[in-house]
Amino acid sequence: MGLMSEALTQILIPLAAFIGIGFALLQWFLVSNVRVSSGSKLESEYNDKLIGEDEQEEGIDSDDVVAKCADIQKAISEGATSFLFTEYKYLGIFMVVFGAIIFLFLGSVKSFSTESEPCTFNKEKICKPTLANAFFTTIAFFLGGLTSALSGFLGMKIATYANARTTLEARKSIGKAFIIAFRSGAVMGFLLAANGLLVLYISINLFKLYYGDDWEGLYESITGYGLGGSSMALFGRVGGGIYTKAADVGADLVGKVERNIPEDDPRNPAVIADNVGDNVGDIAGMGSDLFGSYAESSCAALFVASISSFGSSHDYSAMSYPLIISSMGIVVCLITTLFATDMFEIKNVTEIEPSLKRQLLISTVLMTVGIAFVSFFALPLEFTIFDFGSEKVVKNWHLFFCVSIGLWAGLVIGYTTEYYTSSAYSHVQEVADSCKTGAATNVIFGLALGYKSVIIPIFAIAASIYVSFSLAAMYGIAVAALGMLSTIATGLAIDAYGPISDNAGGIAEMAGMSHSIRERTDALDAAGNTTAAIGKGFAIGSAALVSLALFGAYVSRAGIKTVDVLSPKVFIGLLVGAMLPYWFSAMTMKSVGSAALKMVEEVRRQFNSIPGLMEGTAKPDYATCVKISTDASLKEMIPPGALVMLTPLIAGTFFGVETLAGVLAGSLVSGVQVAISASNTGGAWDNAKKYIEAGATEHARSLGPKGSDAHKAAVIGDTVGDPLKDTSGPSLNILIKLMAVESLVFAPFFATHGGLLFKLL
Amino acid sequence: MGLMSEALTQILIPLAAFIGIGFALLQWFLVSNVRVSSGSKLESEYNDKLIGEDEQEEGIDSDDVVAKCADIQKAISEGATSFLFTEYKYLGIFMVVFGAIIFLFLGSVKSFSTESEPCTFNKEKICKPTLANAFFTTIAFFLGGLTSALSGFLGMKIATYANARTTLEARKSIGKAFIIAFRSGAVMGFLLAANGLLVLYISINLFKLYYGDDWEGLYESITGYGLGGSSMALFGRVGGGIYTKAADVGADLVGKVERNIPEDDPRNPAVIADNVGDNVGDIAGMGSDLFGSYAESSCAALFVASISSFGSSHDYSAMSYPLIISSMGIVVCLITTLFATDMFEIKNVTEIEPSLKRQLLISTVLMTVGIAFVSFFALPLEFTIFDFGSEKVVKNWHLFFCVSIGLWAGLVIGYTTEYYTSSAYSHVQEVADSCKTGAATNVIFGLALGYKSVIIPIFAIAASIYVSFSLAAMYGIAVAALGMLSTIATGLAIDAYGPISDNAGGIAEMAGMSHSIRERTDALDAAGNTTAAIGKGFAIGSAALVSLALFGAYVSRAGIKTVDVLSPKVFIGLLVGAMLPYWFSAMTMKSVGSAALKMVEEVRRQFNSIPGLMEGTAKPDYATCVKISTDASLKEMIPPGALVMLTPLIAGTFFGVETLAGVLAGSLVSGVQVAISASNTGGAWDNAKKYIEAGATEHARSLGPKGSDAHKAAVIGDTVGDPLKDTSGPSLNILIKLMAVESLVFAPFFATHGGLLFKLL
Repeated sequence: MGLMSEALTQILIPLAAFIGIGFALLQWFLVSNVRVSSGSKLESEYNDKLIGEDEQEEGIDSDDVVAKCADIQKAISEGATSFLFTEYKYLGIFMVVFGAIIFLFLGSVKSFSTESEPCTFNKEKICKPTLANAFFTTIAFFLGGLTSALSGFLGMKIATYANARTTLEARKSIGKAFIIAFRSGAVMGFLLAANGLLVLYISINLFKLYYGDDWEGLYESITGYGLGGSSMALFGRVGGGIYTKAADVGADLVGKVERNIPEDDPRNPAVIADNVGDNVGDIAGMGSDLFGSYAESSCAALFVASISSFGSSHDYSAMSYPLIISSMGIVVCLITTLFATDMFEIKNVTEIEPSLKRQLLISTVLMTVGIAFVSFFALPLEFTIFDFGSEKVVKNWHLFFCVSIGLWAGLVIGYTTEYYTSSAYSHVQEVADSCKTGAATNVIFGLALGYKSVIIPIFAIAASIYVSFSLAAMYGIAVAALGMLSTIATGLAIDAYGPISDNAGGIAEMAGMSHSIRERTDALDAAGNTTAAIGKGFAIGSAALVSLALFGAYVSRAGIKTVDVLSPKVFIGLLVGAMLPYWFSAMTMKSVGSAALKMVEEVRRQFNSIPGLMEGTAKPDYATCVKISTDASLKEMIPPGALVMLTPLIAGTFFGVETLAGVLAGSLVSGVQVAISASNTGGAWDNAKKYIEAGATEHARSLGPKGSDAHKAAVIGDTVGDPLKDTSGPSLNILIKLMAVESLVFAPFFATHGGLLFKLL
Repeated sequence: MGLMSEALTQILIPLAAFIGIGFALLQWFLVSNVRVSSGSKLESEYNDKLIGEDEQEEGIDSDDVVAKCADIQKAISEGATSFLFTEYKYLGIFMVVFGAIIFLFLGSVKSFSTESEPCTFNKEKICKPTLANAFFTTIAFFLGGLTSALSGFLGMKIATYANARTTLEARKSIGKAFIIAFRSGAVMGFLLAANGLLVLYISINLFKLYYGDDWEGLYESITGYGLGGSSMALFGRVGGGIYTKAADVGADLVGKVERNIPEDDPRNPAVIADNVGDNVGDIAGMGSDLFGSYAESSCAALFVASISSFGSSHDYSAMSYPLIISSMGIVVCLITTLFATDMFEIKNVTEIEPSLKRQLLISTVLMTVGIAFVSFFALPLEFTIFDFGSEKVVKNWHLFFCVSIGLWAGLVIGYTTEYYTSSAYSHVQEVADSCKTGAATNVIFGLALGYKSVIIPIFAIAASIYVSFSLAAMYGIAVAALGMLSTIATGLAIDAYGPISDNAGGIAEMAGMSHSIRERTDALDAAGNTTAAIGKGFAIGSAALVSLALFGAYVSRAGIKTVDVLSPKVFIGLLVGAMLPYWFSAMTMKSVGSAALKMVEEVRRQFNSIPGLMEGTAKPDYATCVKISTDASLKEMIPPGALVMLTPLIAGTFFGVETLAGVLAGSLVSGVQVAISASNTGGAWDNAKKYIEAGATEHARSLGPKGSDAHKAAVIGDTVGDPLKDTSGPSLNILIKLMAVESLVFAPFFATHGGLLFKLL
């Protein structure tokens, strides 16, 4: 046994969760100090409060501007809330149906028998009936889905609360605006990390009331939590991604390209839909996605631990190692956040990106110490881990290395992503330069950049897989994934910062604020593009580790001893699995394309039929555009969602557990590449365009200004990149994770009833 | 033993090869009946000959046009010949160096001992010394390289011989032009198929003089033939691909987009380089590529057979089954060709594509009968095949199914490719339609189309793998690949038809022929785009099967029993292997991009600095553009070439045979997807552009004409697609095949000395 008692563990985990929630509320309170209101009374309060401020504030005396900001914020917030409610309504039906499928499939494994029986892995002991596992897995599935929805919703709420406040603070200084955006991101990061931990902790303790000593059944059921989280995340990502990009692409194609009006111009009918999209796609979708990763890696680790010596010797603290790591992560991220909010101050545009990068570095360094601490106190000196039928002897410092290498691989991926997507480096500048010869070369160079950007992340992931796998088998992989996600609160904070800044810029433009304020929000946004790409890098890197861990858990649970590429069953699975990311991307890309075409037609129609729209004397009909995005995303998310949800069921039922293992491995190794290259290509194009627009260097000015041929070519690249980086790319993370966790949950069914087709032949 | 005696086999194989060569020469003779000459004497002969022709011939009385055609043809032919000679000079050095590496690595396996020793698989027998295997492998490597170079060179020669002849015949009728282009393609197809077979047959018989009864050693050495063939093919494809697309993209960007002059306009300085490129890239590169596939699948099949009962019972006819299948293929393709050249006549533009498709169908149906015939006569009723350490009992009709399913999978892939890349179907029309909203939507829809187009081919490949693998283990896969390639003569004929028609169109434009002639060559060319895509589909489909067969042979030779995805060594190989196609594509795409930028600058420079160039009163400096393409391709083919050649060596030497097995499987399952989607995306964009230009339907006319906004967007898509479909995509076939065959050749070295890094740890 380790040094930490069960009682202490039972106190520390919820304590960390409450600290995280408390810290998030504190940040929210600090953000709420910036008042946004269209009412004149509050407005005067606001002005009173500012008396004595020594910084020059532009347009401070304009009531009108603040009122406008408030109106726009309200429109965005209402649009986003209404979309999420509609989306969740549909997803609620899906959850109920899929929950029933889980219950029926798992219950049928032992023909719905209510009798206890020998455990699967520890044959001498008696475990709860399979029907109970089916029931509790379904409950866990609902809990995971609810928590995921809550995560996305809370993220959206705080983001739409913060956007206008960031705009208003940008009038004072770039540093103040940065702090507001960053604090809001932190609210989301901490709420998500703490919520995910708390719900999981409570669920385990409640389930334990029934399961008692049957930890195998307990942690088997808990895997439903990961499946629920990821199912919601899939639709959140895909639906949100289609929503945001249909609006974005549609708005840009008519506004920027045809009508030559700036981005986020209030005359553009799709502008509200575009800004709503940032919140439902980049914020709510991303939140659900990372929550899913977190839930799944915890479930994978817990499941493997339950059939290892931790489980058989009922060492509660060691069992809870994944949760304690996450608890430590919350504390470390809290300290890290203080560096950004209280220790340093942003005074210059060029300081933004380094400051965000520094957050990553600080959290990684501190967390390494934290992991050492946890590994030393929570774990016994030596223990055994289940390794596909045999037992592997592992020491506590082995796990320290497993978690740490995952953590540091995350940093490497983050920094590499920044290197390929930030305009501060030569890659993006080269892409910008290629715009001189037109859109075609821009697209060619951008695609090449994306392809190239996979090299280092793949080596980083491969190294962490090799080390953690060698040290602690599949458990090692699971905790390496947890290591990468342990600083999720910081990762999400800097990630959410991006769309918040993007929205802030949109509001500045729409409220008609001065050029210099728009410049500030643009600078915040450019850094946000890079951090969003970094966030996507983390998401995909952790997804790779998580799905490998889930794959390992699936293989263990399905009772497979080897997954031999030389077996035809496995190889065809591998080949078809590697194809799935393409099929999925084809669907999502085309959905965005078709929805964007509809949007273009509507925007053109409004420009042509509403008199005075271009002159700014008439208001566009924002609602119709919002409706187009909403309808398209709700309709179009079904086929790719069905592809992901049905593939494991079909492969497992008709082709059996081995082919399914091949499918999982194939989609994993292929999907990672597609996802990374898509995200980075899109990020690079976006920043190449911004590089030309900002004109900060001699070279950039030679390509610009806005409206030049090179800039037009850059806009085309940016538009192509939109669905790549915000729809297809990030959704692929969920594809590979979700298929793996679904296979894990359904493994007993496939092992018993699967492979119908081969049985027939 | 089968019904066919060894003596009969020894007669039939060379006989088929000579028939193939004879038929190719006959076609060449028929093509040469069309006279192209700049001398006035021959010109008058030509005119004499045509007296009495009842078809209306445009511009027939213009000596000038024929002379111009002859000049242009000469320039293209000289450019292509000079490039290939330069390329082969460099590759000669590479071959010598790599040959030395093969000899040293393989010789070192038993420390250069000259003593005979027990065979690897049949321990009771005595085999020739490893040093002899090293020596003969090196010789086979050189032979393969030479045959590959010869294949490419011959293809280029006939193509540059046929291009102007096709143009001149287009003056008479579309049918006559079609026949010339098709016959020329057939020359290439039959020469390649027959040469490949003959050289392999002779090599085996010569090697046998030394090896005698040691068939294990004999067929082990023969694998060098495949490696030599594919090594040359790699550089041919990559070098040729960069050459042609640098010129094409460069010519289009300035000519079509900036200067608004038609494609292939003689005023464009890059126009000769562009036309040379078609011949060195699409013709010579493709020829080497398919020859490589053919050589490798034969070698893989022979190697597995030699360690199966065919080898141990010294059944020469059964051993030669792969060669007999290829011999039958030549005869079947000969009959098939007669259908196109003598039985049907093309009278209308719309008949071209169906006619080429019919060729595929006829050859497939006839070949199925041929396979049944060969399987019945050449094979014993029952025999055993080596299956990773065990022996699998196989019946002769099992092999019939293996070969046939490969053949039919090829047809499915070919037809699917046509469905996704021909403007006759909705997919390309949809892409064309998306041009209405600009280049960005065009690119998005095109990428989605490419992704989608992988689905059916992957299922076809997976089905043929499953069936052939289940029936006859890795030997089944190898002969399935051979089945797909058995109609290679027809496949190459319709494939080579494409670039020949493309060149013919170029010559028509440059020679200033009338609009109606250019329309005819354009129609030929549009069908050629589709058939080129079909050819690429075949190439990648067969590459997938071939490399899987080679993978199986490698695994057998390296003595690996299972390739378990659950082993970290294998999994990291799988992950990194799946990344290699991206790394490789990044290199080749960027090479094309950079070379195209240089080309653009040169073309712009000439337009700006040569007075009278735009007016057509001064001639451009074609040679400088040819030099830019030549230099770029020779320089830029080295890094991607090195990546492919060095990866197996590094992985095998430092990480060992298991990691290498993972790398091969990973690059295979990922590379196939990237290659198919890249080829089809590019083909679709090209034909979407042609669809708008041709304006054959109401819908097409609503998007056009040339120069409209939609057309400009289509040109951008076409330009992006150029490196995808003609450089990166098709080179990936070779990446996956070459790494596999290289691993096979070096397997004894890796098995003995490999895995240094893991041994150290």
